[in-house]
Amino acid sequence: GQPLVLIAGPCVIEHEELTRAIALYLKNLAREMDIPFIFKASFDKANRTSSAAYRGPGFEQGIEILKNIKQDLNIPVLSDVHRHEEIEKAAEILDVIQIPAFLCRQTDLIVEVAERARVVNIKKGQFLAPWDVRNILEKVLSRGNDNILITERGTCFGYNNLVVDFRSLPILRREGFPVVFDATHSVQLPGGQGTASGGQREMVPYLARAAAAVGIDGLFLEVHPDPSKALCDGPNSLYLDTLPDLLRTVKAIDGSVMALKSQRP
Amino acid sequence: GQPLVLIAGPCVIEHEELTRAIALYLKNLAREMDIPFIFKASFDKANRTSSAAYRGPGFEQGIEILKNIKQDLNIPVLSDVHRHEEIEKAAEILDVIQIPAFLCRQTDLIVEVAERARVVNIKKGQFLAPWDVRNILEKVLSRGNDNILITERGTCFGYNNLVVDFRSLPILRREGFPVVFDATHSVQLPGGQGTASGGQREMVPYLARAAAAVGIDGLFLEVHPDPSKALCDGPNSLYLDTLPDLLRTVKAIDGSVMALKSQRP
Amino acid sequence: GQPLVLIAGPCVIEHEELTRAIALYLKNLAREMDIPFIFKASFDKANRTSSAAYRGPGFEQGIEILKNIKQDLNIPVLSDVHRHEEIEKAAEILDVIQIPAFLCRQTDLIVEVAERARVVNIKKGQFLAPWDVRNILEKVLSRGNDNILITERGTCFGYNNLVVDFRSLPILRREGFPVVFDATHSVQLPGGQGTASGGQREMVPYLARAAAAVGIDGLFLEVHPDPSKALCDGPNSLYLDTLPDLLRTVKAIDGSVMALKSQRP
Amino acid sequence: GQPLVLIAGPCVIEHEELTRAIALYLKNLAREMDIPFIFKASFDKANRTSSAAYRGPGFEQGIEILKNIKQDLNIPVLSDVHRHEEIEKAAEILDVIQIPAFLCRQTDLIVEVAERARVVNIKKGQFLAPWDVRNILEKVLSRGNDNILITERGTCFGYNNLVVDFRSLPILRREGFPVVFDATHSVQLPGGQGTASGGQREMVPYLARAAAAVGIDGLFLEVHPDPSKALCDGPNSLYLDTLPDLLRTVKAIDGSVMALKSQRP
Repeated sequence: GQPLVLIAGPCVIEHEELTRAIALYLKNLAREMDIPFIFKASFDKANRTSSAAYRGPGFEQGIEILKNIKQDLNIPVLSDVHRHEEIEKAAEILDVIQIPAFLCRQTDLIVEVAERARVVNIKKGQFLAPWDVRNILEKVLSRGNDNILITERGTCFGYNNLVVDFRSLPILRREGFPVVFDATHSVQLPGGQGTASGGQREMVPYLARAAAAVGIDGLFLEVHPDPSKALCDGPNSLYLDTLPDLLRTVKAIDGSVMALKSQRP
Repeated sequence: GQPLVLIAGPCVIEHEELTRAIALYLKNLAREMDIPFIFKASFDKANRTSSAAYRGPGFEQGIEILKNIKQDLNIPVLSDVHRHEEIEKAAEILDVIQIPAFLCRQTDLIVEVAERARVVNIKKGQFLAPWDVRNILEKVLSRGNDNILITERGTCFGYNNLVVDFRSLPILRREGFPVVFDATHSVQLPGGQGTASGGQREMVPYLARAAAAVGIDGLFLEVHPDPSKALCDGPNSLYLDTLPDLLRTVKAIDGSVMALKSQRP
Repeated sequence: GQPLVLIAGPCVIEHEELTRAIALYLKNLAREMDIPFIFKASFDKANRTSSAAYRGPGFEQGIEILKNIKQDLNIPVLSDVHRHEEIEKAAEILDVIQIPAFLCRQTDLIVEVAERARVVNIKKGQFLAPWDVRNILEKVLSRGNDNILITERGTCFGYNNLVVDFRSLPILRREGFPVVFDATHSVQLPGGQGTASGGQREMVPYLARAAAAVGIDGLFLEVHPDPSKALCDGPNSLYLDTLPDLLRTVKAIDGSVMALKSQRP
Repeated sequence: GQPLVLIAGPCVIEHEELTRAIALYLKNLAREMDIPFIFKASFDKANRTSSAAYRGPGFEQGIEILKNIKQDLNIPVLSDVHRHEEIEKAAEILDVIQIPAFLCRQTDLIVEVAERARVVNIKKGQFLAPWDVRNILEKVLSRGNDNILITERGTCFGYNNLVVDFRSLPILRREGFPVVFDATHSVQLPGGQGTASGGQREMVPYLARAAAAVGIDGLFLEVHPDPSKALCDGPNSLYLDTLPDLLRTVKAIDGSVMALKSQRP
């Protein structure tokens, strides 16, 4: 019975001004549309396809930028960690710590995040069946943390391609935690550009609408004012100015689905 | 800009009374909800998993039943053909002739159906990429028939499982023909019960809503008053009495998506 | 304990002389290498990707060519049927009638072939789990015919790609019938060239050797003196002059696997 | 032109005596059969499906056990690392450091291992196309280390299942580094037992033989005197006493493939 939450921001922190500008735009848009909002940005892309790719400002500088934006704009922030030594400080600042999809089976990382984070967002690995997320949940719960989000971001489908199996959303929801749909990573074509992943930005609105129609608690989107110049994941990032239309439709669909439920005893 | 069409009926003709009763129920429901309706029933399930399975009344008797129902209820009817000798008579009676998914690469069948049918519904094979449907369209168009529907019904995903790649719907729509989503066959688990295909009925509403949110021209559903006693595809058939709720939500979602489009110049 | 059989020939009959020349070459090579041989050629490619593609001489002319080659060279011949009206005459001439992979679920075709053919070769559909072949076997056996071959030819793997799951060979063999590996169709890239299927000829020797090492009863290969000029499936057909090396290695591997078995009590 | 290497050992160090006994058995068997041998054992299974599963003695104790076995038996040893703080000491003792499949995209881990390890064994992720391994190789090579092994261990195929695409072996070999086939992890059924991965031990010999027939530089096998009592990956571990037969056949097949090559100019 909760309204859908928006988790959005740039793939990676490129520099503070740009990151702050995006956050401000999103905060205002979300308020206008009456959508709860969490700002997302990564300080380090530790698993880029190629080592020549831009990785971000790194942990120390990046976490400071997120801290400033969080305080100045008074918005909750989400980011991901890849190394144990990042967790403690990340937990001080971040409202949500995200377990990257490739790392969703690393027990130590998960339990240490579980111990320290206010909220843990588990990205379901591309190699994982939806019912196998239960084992990850148990790793988090074993540390006494039950503030968990589960994020669907597509499943391996042949080579250099992902498919979203929308049956996963109700399966994941049965676990009793909010389920988020990551519409921009779900349209990645992993490794599809040789030394970088390709993406199908034009497919994001279709999949975001589909997810809302199936029923989700949150929508995760990577955005950029000019994705063609983005330093990371440009091909699957959304243009900022396409967000209002998309969110309006998603909200209407979410409303139709909620109405259906509320009629039921 | 057209409203969504419903194509629905039992998997197979079990006997005339039951088939007629289902058709009447659906006709009335569709009229009440202001949804254009085409009645669907097969006279012969020629590719059952096992030869011990019920196949239907056969062509001669089945086509007569459809003819009677069509005339008496004044509704358009759709059915599928598997053998060349069925095409001529089928074309006389049926409003839409359907090419079964497993046969979507059989050139002779397709062109002969194209020559005679008013409308051809191509079911995309579970083994086919969405962009490869173009070659089938060209086979139909080469016979001067451009009354074509394309139906998505899921794609092979490992063994005994299908996945719906919802990116296929906009890809198929680019071809310029109405695109139908078959929500009940898409949840089949092929061969999943040893000598019959299993199915996940509970997933049908999720996928039907998702398809409407992505954007479709028609929704295809197999229904039965008591799927537990259905002689074919029971596990993925919908209970008749769950249809009103499902269609109401689908229609609302379709409206939200249409509204989005009409705002655009 | 039987030696491996070679089933080989061109994808389609292009004209009688070429077909006969290939058959003669293969017959002599097989005799030299002491490998039992069945000649394979199709008279009609009824499920080409595009209707613009060459289909062959058609049934009437094609079956006569096969009849002549069979008599003149005194070799067993295999071909496939797609339409019911072809079965009776095909059964008079052919030693093995093949059920095409796309048609492996068409009950009527299978039982009618079962009733008339000396030997039935079932090509496992690209959409079928190996354990589901049992239902097809039962359709054949229900007609009193137990002269059955089962052919593996790859499984759907994402779009426009097949993968050979070599676990299927021992699973299929458990059914008690000879298992054939089709090494040239297994490297097809279905629809991979837009209006035709691509293929990875260079992968054929690897997969043929792998199949022999796993354990098979027959190896199926499409060959052509100049695949670049072949009218069908050129990209995955083998150059005739690469056969001796390939067969020598396959035979050596088959010998190693047989030796292993014969040591066991 | 090099003979095939055997990399084998238990999934995890259960205790020192058992580990040593396995190592001794394998060393003697390999010497007898004239097969170069590297001993493999993990000190920590950091990505078990469930947190209730046995993980091993941990790094400190485990690395000491491996050090003792290496010195006493005078054999090279391989193990895997999951955390940065393990790399330095691991590099002092291990002959080969392995990058786990789930971590094959973690740039920091790879480059730090590359900087310190004598030899790096990259396990190809289940989510990775074979041609995308090139980007990982470049991460290693960028640190001046070109002592690299690449290990194939299967690819995602639907849910809870892997398939080995044997086309990957020649594709990986084109990169110019030795290619290893991991025959025991390739038959895992990930998550297939709810809180643990299942496995198909009976499929290991088939796939190992297939890999040898395709052409590999090394064969990786997890073994145990009694897999039914193994604390990790029992379902896909081989009984020690089945090794001699398997290795004899694999060696014969490898010989047939090498003979083929040596005939070529």
